[in-house]
Amino acid sequence: MIETIRWVNNSIRIIDQTELPSKEVYLNISRVDELIGAITKLQVRGAPALGIAGAYGMVLGLQELITSNEFVSGKKVDEIAASLIGSRPTAVNLKWGVLRIKGLIDLTKNKKTSEMMSSMISEAHAILVEDIESCVALGLHGAQLVSDKFSILTHCNTGGLATGGFGTGLGIIVTAHQQHKRIHVYVDETRPLLQGARLTSWELTKEGIDHTIIADNMAGYLMAQKKVDCVIVGADRIAKNGDAANKIGTYSLAVLCEKHKVPFYVAAPTSTIDSAAKNGNDIPIEERNHDEITHYHGNRIAPAGARAYNPAFDVTPASMITAIITEKKIYKGPHYNFAD
Amino acid sequence: MIETIRWVNNSIRIIDQTELPSKEVYLNISRVDELIGAITKLQVRGAPALGIAGAYGMVLGLQELITSNEFVSGKKVDEIAASLIGSRPTAVNLKWGVLRIKGLIDLTKNKKTSEMMSSMISEAHAILVEDIESCVALGLHGAQLVSDKFSILTHCNTGGLATGGFGTGLGIIVTAHQQHKRIHVYVDETRPLLQGARLTSWELTKEGIDHTIIADNMAGYLMAQKKVDCVIVGADRIAKNGDAANKIGTYSLAVLCEKHKVPFYVAAPTSTIDSAAKNGNDIPIEERNHDEITHYHGNRIAPAGARAYNPAFDVTPASMITAIITEKKIYKGPHYNFAD
Repeated sequence: MIETIRWVNNSIRIIDQTELPSKEVYLNISRVDELIGAITKLQVRGAPALGIAGAYGMVLGLQELITSNEFVSGKKVDEIAASLIGSRPTAVNLKWGVLRIKGLIDLTKNKKTSEMMSSMISEAHAILVEDIESCVALGLHGAQLVSDKFSILTHCNTGGLATGGFGTGLGIIVTAHQQHKRIHVYVDETRPLLQGARLTSWELTKEGIDHTIIADNMAGYLMAQKKVDCVIVGADRIAKNGDAANKIGTYSLAVLCEKHKVPFYVAAPTSTIDSAAKNGNDIPIEERNHDEITHYHGNRIAPAGARAYNPAFDVTPASMITAIITEKKIYKGPHYNFAD
Repeated sequence: MIETIRWVNNSIRIIDQTELPSKEVYLNISRVDELIGAITKLQVRGAPALGIAGAYGMVLGLQELITSNEFVSGKKVDEIAASLIGSRPTAVNLKWGVLRIKGLIDLTKNKKTSEMMSSMISEAHAILVEDIESCVALGLHGAQLVSDKFSILTHCNTGGLATGGFGTGLGIIVTAHQQHKRIHVYVDETRPLLQGARLTSWELTKEGIDHTIIADNMAGYLMAQKKVDCVIVGADRIAKNGDAANKIGTYSLAVLCEKHKVPFYVAAPTSTIDSAAKNGNDIPIEERNHDEITHYHGNRIAPAGARAYNPAFDVTPASMITAIITEKKIYKGPHYNFAD
């Protein structure tokens, strides 16, 4: 299993996802501001992995306060939490991981700092372990929907790199492969940051799973040729009604699936469900730097002065999602009730 | 006007489109094999421009035969024509330009070679001039469909760089701008070769037309936000029934337009209509080198050994095209009869 994010020697060790697939570089992060930088640059990314990063980030924050002999005030803790949560506004798991540890700080604030620290580290570890287990359960549920000889289209990266375990959407694919189903995967390259071509293809290559990279704009042509049996994507936040925010381009895939009667599956742990968001309109959409579109590896593609638009996510209405696959169960659309 | 392709000093001068927008480099091409190399590498591209290139290419071929004192046999002429036509199988204009000059060689084969040459050069010039005029007429027809304050989404490059004149789809946009309509253009970057981000944005910048580059996978999200009033694309071959082959990704845009009730327009000169193709199934789809997906500027993006799929075009069914705009008239869908 890829060790995407781990707690090692009082710091967070991550694999730097911006260097993949050409280099496998690990970074040790010992300060919250470094972690925020790494999250913003997408050195660590993927909704479930960000949940873990948020949790360990809170541990780092408390550790910084303690080693600098600062008083662990509620205000300081709130500031650390807010700065972590604000670093990527769409993925709700980040907030979820941060708040889970923050709750513990509130509970243990009358204890010795060493006790507080060890409770927090244990809780962050628990989040990592739960995520690993969650991937396995989600993979087993989802693999029921994948038949032998299926051709599956996926978008962005929903694999081990996006989680603590072996992935959500890609975990389903890995599970089906382990069940000896002969599958083929079409990998959307996923502009602008090419998480599909760089990361998903890297994971599938490691797993020995047959796959083909396509430009995002080729999905419709593949479906018109009846080359796609289902689409599996992840999610960064799912509203109470089932509307799902995910990497930009996901909504276009859902429209193509509707036109071609191809099942469209969203795979995510229940920690991605934000019951405070009534529907997709309540999900904030992060807009990223335009240079991600106009430049490639620091070299300008577009003419000087040309502007770009760079929303990192879009929202797919619940009514267009065939099923949402979680670690608990498969919720079937078009109407979702996660209290079931 | 951009001098995309011209006949200068017994050779073809083109602007090298692979170097744009960072460098404006002109190439002088004096042999057919050089021209085929330039066409294959997309140094010259765009269906109408390829029609002109095909015509001048035949002139080059004849010139080569004459200067090497070879007999201008029907077989040699057929070989030159076939090699030019085969260099890009989808764009029918290339074939059309080649055959128009080839027909003239057949007609003038009993004349002196100098006379034959001058007839051919005149005919190729005529094709260029017709294309310039055709762009103007097409632009005026199409601009009727563009209202003040329209936001137009376009794909690939359908501008001066794709034609002898000021463009087909982009010609409509330029015409609407010249008519003082306040328009905004969303430019699909158009993976894998980024003709939108590199070429269309370069042309729009030169024309002073307000525009924003997006990744191809953002079009659906824009339409869901009601930010697109119409889509205008070009075509590389239109079948007798109106099915239209165009740059990969065009079909996905048409599906998105159908979903969001956005008009979907195809702009092309009548030389793009191939009455020998009954419908889209008769249009050959060029598949290009996988490196265009797995590499960027010679640098590997995807992991070693990863495979890609790289169809250069897709076909949009006539029933999904709101109108086809030519230099003669606007043909309204969903049923097309170009004999009208």
